[in-house]
Amino acid sequence: MGFITTLAPLLGLGGLILAGIMYSVVIRQPEGNEKMREIAGMIHDGAMVYLKRQYKILFIVIIIAAIALTIFIGFSTAVAYLFGAFFSMLAGYFGMKGATKANVRTAEAANRYKPNPGKALSVAFIGGSVMGLSVASLGLIGIGIFFYFFGYPETSSVINGFAMGASSIALFARVGGGIYTKTADVGADLVGKVEAGIPEDDPRNPGVIADNVGDNVGDVAGLGADIFESYVGSIIATIALGATVIAGSAAAELGTSLSLMSYPLILAMVGLIASVIGIGALKYLEQFNPASALRYSTFIATAVFLVLGFLSTFVSHVAVTVYVAVFAGCICGIAIGLITEYYTSSRPVHRIEEASETGAATNIISGLAVGLESTVLPLVAICIAIFVANHFAGLYGIGIAAVGMLATTGIIMSVDAYGPIADNAGGISEMSGLGEDVREITDSLDALGNTTAAIGKGFAIGSAALTALAMFAAYSQAITLKLGHSFDIIITDPKVVIGLFIGGTLPFLIGALTMTSVGKAAFKMVNEIRRQFRDIPGLLEGKEGVKPDVAKCIDISTKAALTEMILPGLIALLMPIVVGFILGPFALGGMLAGATVTGVLLAIFMANAGGAWDNAKKFIEQGSHGGKGSDAHKAAVVGDTVGDPFKDTSGPSMNILIKLMSVVSLIIAPLLV
Amino acid sequence: MGFITTLAPLLGLGGLILAGIMYSVVIRQPEGNEKMREIAGMIHDGAMVYLKRQYKILFIVIIIAAIALTIFIGFSTAVAYLFGAFFSMLAGYFGMKGATKANVRTAEAANRYKPNPGKALSVAFIGGSVMGLSVASLGLIGIGIFFYFFGYPETSSVINGFAMGASSIALFARVGGGIYTKTADVGADLVGKVEAGIPEDDPRNPGVIADNVGDNVGDVAGLGADIFESYVGSIIATIALGATVIAGSAAAELGTSLSLMSYPLILAMVGLIASVIGIGALKYLEQFNPASALRYSTFIATAVFLVLGFLSTFVSHVAVTVYVAVFAGCICGIAIGLITEYYTSSRPVHRIEEASETGAATNIISGLAVGLESTVLPLVAICIAIFVANHFAGLYGIGIAAVGMLATTGIIMSVDAYGPIADNAGGISEMSGLGEDVREITDSLDALGNTTAAIGKGFAIGSAALTALAMFAAYSQAITLKLGHSFDIIITDPKVVIGLFIGGTLPFLIGALTMTSVGKAAFKMVNEIRRQFRDIPGLLEGKEGVKPDVAKCIDISTKAALTEMILPGLIALLMPIVVGFILGPFALGGMLAGATVTGVLLAIFMANAGGAWDNAKKFIEQGSHGGKGSDAHKAAVVGDTVGDPFKDTSGPSMNILIKLMSVVSLIIAPLLV
Repeated sequence: MGFITTLAPLLGLGGLILAGIMYSVVIRQPEGNEKMREIAGMIHDGAMVYLKRQYKILFIVIIIAAIALTIFIGFSTAVAYLFGAFFSMLAGYFGMKGATKANVRTAEAANRYKPNPGKALSVAFIGGSVMGLSVASLGLIGIGIFFYFFGYPETSSVINGFAMGASSIALFARVGGGIYTKTADVGADLVGKVEAGIPEDDPRNPGVIADNVGDNVGDVAGLGADIFESYVGSIIATIALGATVIAGSAAAELGTSLSLMSYPLILAMVGLIASVIGIGALKYLEQFNPASALRYSTFIATAVFLVLGFLSTFVSHVAVTVYVAVFAGCICGIAIGLITEYYTSSRPVHRIEEASETGAATNIISGLAVGLESTVLPLVAICIAIFVANHFAGLYGIGIAAVGMLATTGIIMSVDAYGPIADNAGGISEMSGLGEDVREITDSLDALGNTTAAIGKGFAIGSAALTALAMFAAYSQAITLKLGHSFDIIITDPKVVIGLFIGGTLPFLIGALTMTSVGKAAFKMVNEIRRQFRDIPGLLEGKEGVKPDVAKCIDISTKAALTEMILPGLIALLMPIVVGFILGPFALGGMLAGATVTGVLLAIFMANAGGAWDNAKKFIEQGSHGGKGSDAHKAAVVGDTVGDPFKDTSGPSMNILIKLMSVVSLIIAPLLV
Repeated sequence: MGFITTLAPLLGLGGLILAGIMYSVVIRQPEGNEKMREIAGMIHDGAMVYLKRQYKILFIVIIIAAIALTIFIGFSTAVAYLFGAFFSMLAGYFGMKGATKANVRTAEAANRYKPNPGKALSVAFIGGSVMGLSVASLGLIGIGIFFYFFGYPETSSVINGFAMGASSIALFARVGGGIYTKTADVGADLVGKVEAGIPEDDPRNPGVIADNVGDNVGDVAGLGADIFESYVGSIIATIALGATVIAGSAAAELGTSLSLMSYPLILAMVGLIASVIGIGALKYLEQFNPASALRYSTFIATAVFLVLGFLSTFVSHVAVTVYVAVFAGCICGIAIGLITEYYTSSRPVHRIEEASETGAATNIISGLAVGLESTVLPLVAICIAIFVANHFAGLYGIGIAAVGMLATTGIIMSVDAYGPIADNAGGISEMSGLGEDVREITDSLDALGNTTAAIGKGFAIGSAALTALAMFAAYSQAITLKLGHSFDIIITDPKVVIGLFIGGTLPFLIGALTMTSVGKAAFKMVNEIRRQFRDIPGLLEGKEGVKPDVAKCIDISTKAALTEMILPGLIALLMPIVVGFILGPFALGGMLAGATVTGVLLAIFMANAGGAWDNAKKFIEQGSHGGKGSDAHKAAVVGDTVGDPFKDTSGPSMNILIKLMSVVSLIIAPLLV
C-alpha cells in the first residue's frame, strides 16, 4: 500500500505527459485563414497578458502568506503552500494555452467538415482535456510528493499547506476571472445587442474580443483553479481525517490510520485512470451522436471509477463500508448535475419564458423564484450523501464521499473546459465571417456547452459543500487532538451563534462586492463602447477597414478584474484568522458552519437562476414566445444580463470562499488553543 | 412582584379602551364627499371580506392544531393556543377597522387644511395607533391572564401555546396578505403605469381598488400579526428561559426563577405606558415639524421605556446586569432601523439610480448588490447585542434583549400602520380627483411612511432574530430539563449538519413559493386588466360614467392569497414535527439554527433591496437622472416591480417562518426525548 501511493506522482506525471500530447494534437490541427488567426491571436494574447498580470499580483500575496506560515506554522507547510499555489497557477496556464489554441481550430474544423459537427466537437474536447488532465495530474503529483515525505499521522498536517496554496490562487482567479468575463460580456451585450441591435460577437463591437478573452480567463482558468482546489482539498481533508483516527476508536474499525490516509490518494489515482479511459471513449462515441458523446463518456469514466474504486478497498485495506461513502458521493455529484440540468434547461425555464411576455420585471421575478427553488433538491441530495457517508464511515465518510465525487475530475474538467472553447469558436467564426452554416455548427456545440457548464457548476458546488464539511470536521479533530479532550462546538453557545451569523453573512458580503464590481466596471465598459460607436466614423456602419479599439476594452476588463479581486480575496483569507483569534475557536467553528450553509445555498441560487435566464433567452431566440426582437425577447435579454454576474462571478466565488476559509482554519487550528 | 404582574391584563384592558377611544376620534373626523366615501367603502369592504374569508380558512387549521395539542401536549396548552390565535385575529381586525376608516379621513383632512399637512398626519397616525395599541394591549391581556394561572416554573410551558397560536395566524396572515397586496400592485402597475401610461391610482385602472385593499391586508393586518407574534413570542420565550433557571446555578445570580419570569411581563407593561406617552407626544410635536414628529415621538417613548425599565429591575428583584441586556436589545433595534434607513433612502439608492441610466439590467444588478450588502451591518448589530446580552445575563439575556427591542411595540406598530393609511389616503384623493395640491400633501405623508415602513421592517427582522434565538435556547433548555442532563447540539455531528442544511434551505423554499405565487397571480391580474381596457369601451379614454370592474380584480387577489398561503404555512408548521420525529432533536436544533441564519439574511436582503428599488424610482420621479418618462425611469420601474414581492411578500414571510418553527419545536420538545 505504501508502495502504491509512491506511484501517485509518477501516474500524475504520466497524465501530464498525456496532456502535453493532447496539446500537440490540438496544435497540429489547421487553424484557418489569416483573419481567423489574427482574431485568435488577439484572444490568446489578451488572456495571457491578463494571466501574467494576475499572477504577478498573486505572487505578492503568496509570498506574504508563505512568510506568515513559516513564522507561525512551520517551514514545511510554507513550502507545501508555495507548491499548491504554483501548481494551481501552472494548471491554469496549461489549460488556457490549450483552450486558446483549440478555439480557432474548432472553428476551422466546423468550417472544413460541415455539416458534420463531430470533428469540431472532437477538437474542442481535446483542447478541454488539456485542462482536465493538467488539473488532475498536477494535483496527484503535488499531493503524491508531499504524501511521500509527510504521509504519517504525526506530520500530515504539512500537506494542508498544499490545499491552502491551491485555495488562495483559486479565490483570486475565480473572482478576478469572473469580474473580467462579465464586465466584458455585460458591456458588449448592453450596447451591441440591446442598443445598437447588432448580433453577438459582431466584429464591429469593440468589447467582443474582451468578451472572448473573458470566456478563457473566467470559465477556463477560473473554473480550473476552482476544481483544482476542490480536488486537492477533498483529498487532503480526508487525509487529515484519516490521520486523527486513533487505534481502538470506533473509526479504527474502518482501517488503520495509514490505510485511511492512503485510500483517498489511491482513489484519485484510480479516478485519473478512469478519466483517461473516458476521454479515449469520446473519440469512439462522437461518431454516433456528438450531442450525447460528452455525457456518455463521463458516465463511462464514472462506471470505471466505481468498479476500480471498489477493488481498491481491498488493496488499501480499508473496510468495504468506506466504499459505500465513496459511492454515495459519486452518485450525489451526478444527481446534483442532473437537477441542475433540469432547472437550467427544462420546465422551470419555460416558466421564465412565459413570464417574459409580461415584461422584464416578471421575467426577473420568475427567474429569482426558479433560482431560490432550485436550491432545495441539491441540498436534499447533499443531506442524503452526508447521512449515508456518515452512517457507513463516520466523519471520515464525508471526506471520502467528496473524494468520490471529485476523483474523476480529469474528465469532468475536460467537459467543462470544452464549453468556453466551443463558445470562443462561435465568436471567431462570427467575427471572421465564416458564414451561417458554420455558425450553426458552433452554435450547436455551444448549446451543448451551456448544459455541460451548468452541470459542471452543480458539481463544483456539491463538491465544495462536502469538501468544506470535511475540512470543518478536520478542523474540529485537529483542535480535539491539540486539546487532548473533546472539542464540542455547541450550537446554543452564544459565541457559536455569533460565529454562525458572521459566517452566514460573509457569502452575502462577497456576493455584494462582486456584483458591485461587475456593475461598476460594466458601466465603464458601456460608456467606452458607446464612445467608440459615436467617435469612430464608419464603425457602426461596418465600413471596410474601420476597426474598433479592442485594446481599450480589454484594458477596462483587466484593470477591473485585478483591482476588484483584492478585497474579496483578503476577506476570505483573513476572516478566519480575525474571528479565530478574537472570538476563539468555537466562534470560528460557528463561522465555518454558517458560511458553508449560506455559501452553498447562494451559490446554487445564483448559478441556477443565471443558467435558467440564459437558456430562457436562448429558447426565445429559437422562436418561442415571439422569437428574436419580440417584447418577450427584450425582457429575456434583461434577465440574461442580470444572470451573467450571478452565475459567472458571484455564484462561483462562494464555493471557494467556503473552502478557503475552512482550510485556513484547519491550518491555524493548533494556534487557537 | 406577583401583585404587579396581576395588573398586566388590567393595564392591557386600559390600552384596549384607549384604542377604542382613538377609533372613535378617527370616526368623528369628516369623511369627505360622496365619491370619496364610495371609494373608501369599496376598500373597507374588500379588506373585510378578505379578512373574513382568511379567518374562515384559518379556523380549520387552528381547530386541527388545537385538537393535536390537546391529544399530545395537554388541554391547557391547547386553550392557550386558541387564545393566542384568536387574539392575533382580533388585533388584525381592530387594526384594519381603524386603518380603513382613517384613510379617507386623512385624505379629507389633507383637503380641508391644505397646505398644512399636520392635521392629516395626525389623523393617519391616530388611525395607526388603533392597531399599535391593540397589538400591545391584546398581547399583554393574553399573556397576563395565562401568566396569572400558569406563571410558575412547573406550569409555564402552557403559555407557549399562546405564542404558537399567535405564530400560526401570523404566518398565514403575512403570506396571504403579502400575496394579495403584491398581486394587485404589480398587476395594476404593469398594465396601468407601464403599458397604458396612466398615473398610479388612476380610477380608470381596474386593479387600483384591489391595490388599496392590499395595502390594508398586507401592511396593516399582515404586519400587525407579525409584530404581535414577535412581541408575544419574545416575552414568552423569556418566561420559558426564566422558568428553567435552577437555584444555585450561575443564572440564578440574576434573580429567582419567578422574578426572572415576571420581568419580561413587567417590561411589557412599562413599554405600553411609554408607548402611550409617545403617542400623546406626537399630538404636541406635529405642530412644529410633521416630518420628524413620528421619529421623535418614537424616541421619546424609547427614552421613557429605558428609564422605567431600569427602575423596574428593582421592583422585579432582578440583577441590574439584566438591564444591560434590555438596553442592548433596545439600542440594537434602533441601530437596525437607522441602517435600514441608510440603505433604503441614502447613498446606496443613488447607486441604483445611476445604474438605471444603462437600463433595467444594471438597475437590477445594483439593487441586488445593495440588498446583499445591506445584510452585513444589521447582522453585526445583532451579534453585538447577543454578545452584550449574553455577557451580562447569559442565555436569558438574549430573550430579555428581544423584549427590550419590542416592549415599545405600541408606538412602533402605530408608526408602521400609519404608512399604509397615508398611502391609501393618496390613492383615495387621486381616485376622487381632489387635485394636485391635496395629492402633494398625501404624497409627502406617503414618502414619510415609506421610510417608517422600511425602519419597521428592520425592527421586525431584528426582533425576529432575537426572538427565534431565545425560543431556540428555550427549546434546548426544555430538552435538557426533560433529559435531566445536558443536551448539547454539536455542530460537527452529521445529523446537526443535515439539520443545518435543511433549515437553511427552508427560507429559500418559502421565498421561491411566495415569489412564484405573486408571479403567477400578477400574470392573471395583468391579463384581466388588459382585457378590461380592451373590452370595456371608453374605459381607457376616461369616458363619463364608464367604470372598471374592480370586483373581478379583487377576486383574483383574494383567491390567489387564500390558496397560495396554504402550502408555505403548512411547511412552516409541519417541518419541525417531521424533522423532530424522524431525524431527532439534534437535527431539529440544527434546523432551527440554519433557518434562523438564512431566514434573517434573506429577510434583510429582500426587504432592503425592495425598499432601495422603490426609492430609486421615487427619486428619479422627483427629477433625478431624467425624471419621469426617461429611460432611467423605465428601468427603475422594473426594479421597483421586482422589489415589490421581495419586500412585501417573501422577505417578511421569513421572520415568521423562523419564529413559528422555533415555537413549534419548543412545544413538541418534551415529546422528542
